[in-house]
Amino acid sequence: MTASPLPALPPAPPLALTMGEPAGIGGEIAARAWAALRETGPAFLFLGDPSLLGGVPHQVVESPAAATAIFPAALPVLPLPLAAPVRPGRPDPRNAPPVIAAIERAVALARAGEVGAVVTNPIQKSVLTATGFPHPGHTEFLAALAPGGGPPVMMLTAAGLRAVPVTIHQSLRSAIESLTVERIVTTGRATAEGLRRDFGIAAPRLALAGLNPHAGEDGTMGTEERDIIAPAIAALRAEGIDARGPYPADTLFTPQARAGYDAALGMYHDQALIPVKTLDMHGGVNVTLGLAVVRTSPDHGTALDIAGQGRADPGSLVAALRLAAELAAHRRRESP
Amino acid sequence: MTASPLPALPPAPPLALTMGEPAGIGGEIAARAWAALRETGPAFLFLGDPSLLGGVPHQVVESPAAATAIFPAALPVLPLPLAAPVRPGRPDPRNAPPVIAAIERAVALARAGEVGAVVTNPIQKSVLTATGFPHPGHTEFLAALAPGGGPPVMMLTAAGLRAVPVTIHQSLRSAIESLTVERIVTTGRATAEGLRRDFGIAAPRLALAGLNPHAGEDGTMGTEERDIIAPAIAALRAEGIDARGPYPADTLFTPQARAGYDAALGMYHDQALIPVKTLDMHGGVNVTLGLAVVRTSPDHGTALDIAGQGRADPGSLVAALRLAAELAAHRRRESP
Repeated sequence: MTASPLPALPPAPPLALTMGEPAGIGGEIAARAWAALRETGPAFLFLGDPSLLGGVPHQVVESPAAATAIFPAALPVLPLPLAAPVRPGRPDPRNAPPVIAAIERAVALARAGEVGAVVTNPIQKSVLTATGFPHPGHTEFLAALAPGGGPPVMMLTAAGLRAVPVTIHQSLRSAIESLTVERIVTTGRATAEGLRRDFGIAAPRLALAGLNPHAGEDGTMGTEERDIIAPAIAALRAEGIDARGPYPADTLFTPQARAGYDAALGMYHDQALIPVKTLDMHGGVNVTLGLAVVRTSPDHGTALDIAGQGRADPGSLVAALRLAAELAAHRRRESP
Repeated sequence: MTASPLPALPPAPPLALTMGEPAGIGGEIAARAWAALRETGPAFLFLGDPSLLGGVPHQVVESPAAATAIFPAALPVLPLPLAAPVRPGRPDPRNAPPVIAAIERAVALARAGEVGAVVTNPIQKSVLTATGFPHPGHTEFLAALAPGGGPPVMMLTAAGLRAVPVTIHQSLRSAIESLTVERIVTTGRATAEGLRRDFGIAAPRLALAGLNPHAGEDGTMGTEERDIIAPAIAALRAEGIDARGPYPADTLFTPQARAGYDAALGMYHDQALIPVKTLDMHGGVNVTLGLAVVRTSPDHGTALDIAGQGRADPGSLVAALRLAAELAAHRRRESP
């Protein structure tokens, strides 16, 4: 996990944090994250309804420019008023438009350079879908708003581990079916590029997991390693990317193994996410690579079951804000 | 991880440790495990060729009875001479017969009550197979030698986690195909019985993982949860077993989640083994439940690449010996 030193740059713009699902924990953890970061930064502004912030000191702003100066004393808010009253734990479809507007506004500000990065609170996908939201999820929506030239790539980071699932939200059976050389190469390339541009890692090292137990054990327990994953690794290496594997997944996430790579590619959702969440459930951060903007989010959902009770842990959001600031700084250095 | 207190019993018999693949690290780690345990116990005797033990003090015995008294001063050895000279890292098929004989002898002693449990060093399956060994692996051989009334179940333990894969050494594709209600119920039942009999847990709590991301998210990402896993859980509960789930696998292994169960059942090899090895690569222990004897083994292979170099870590073997002694004590109490 080496990162290049940063040269002096003009003061960093603040980050944009979206409200996410109003009936979830987004407002609570935003308020707590402000309390945790007000003295040290990074500064951020909240895009959403101020009523979600509880009693935390906040100040309405008209643009991000004022946010950094205000931040130590109050949480700056770019208001996006809700349409219906909030009942914790019970999402209301009438609030879908401002939830979506917050995301759109955050991306527009990031594209204009007025904020350094977009940090998103979790949304309740089913509620948005019911109101006609056409995207399968947050990430796809962001990719539509800020396309980066290739498919977006989801990376989970925690406790010294960066993990990227090659296939994501599909059944395990269909994940196996949809695993292709092309898909692995595209994901590996975007991962390497993201590590270079946003993490400041000049020559990223990728470790690819096998699909099968023991990475197929020489073809005796599956052939995808030989037919799909090994050729994809060869293709990545032919592009100059330090990709290695396929490795047995069960020993790929030990401390010794982790020291040998900058990111691990899992072939399916749980293969990449189990180690991240097992190691660090509350400090995990979701990073979307391959967008025209820097985007991170906490590695948890809307937590409707505990919303409004003051029990939500802001650790993952704080980590997401800190990481967003780091990535934004690297990206500004790359293309100021 | 509660365990019942143990009533007073006659002195425990020693454990039997097999030599495993002579060209691997079995002898080295046996010697180091003796050094680590000589003062505290549990006492064990080595079934194999004494030349594998390097310079460690050892003493040939004719039966296990003498082993416990000797143990603090020397590693007791029940000799099984090798047929060919040992070259570290290069297994010789001529040594397959004594390797197999050590396992058979250990099981016979355990069945006779002369040793408390069988602890096995890793074998090199391909070498044994080439000489006509008809079993797919160690566990199946042990099940043939000491059948327990049902199929053997592999449990991995480490760092406060016990995990059982329902399917094991088969391609991921075929693992999905072979997942049935029957197979999950059989595995769950054997796991609960093993936890009761060998771990002293009166009312074991089982947590079952889903197969698909987010445990299928209400059928939108796979149907095996609804069609196979949920009915299996219902069947286990109908037998009085506290089985719950299916839970999303990625959040099933956090410290909070682990506190809620005594064993987790993964639907395939890596789902159960990734968390165990990620948490504790060198202290992991493999336990075979459902045999007529107690059996544990270190959670690693023969390590041919580092054999003979004095670099092998005995941590997993030491943990396997300690756990075997605990399990044997529980089983003696159950059926003295």
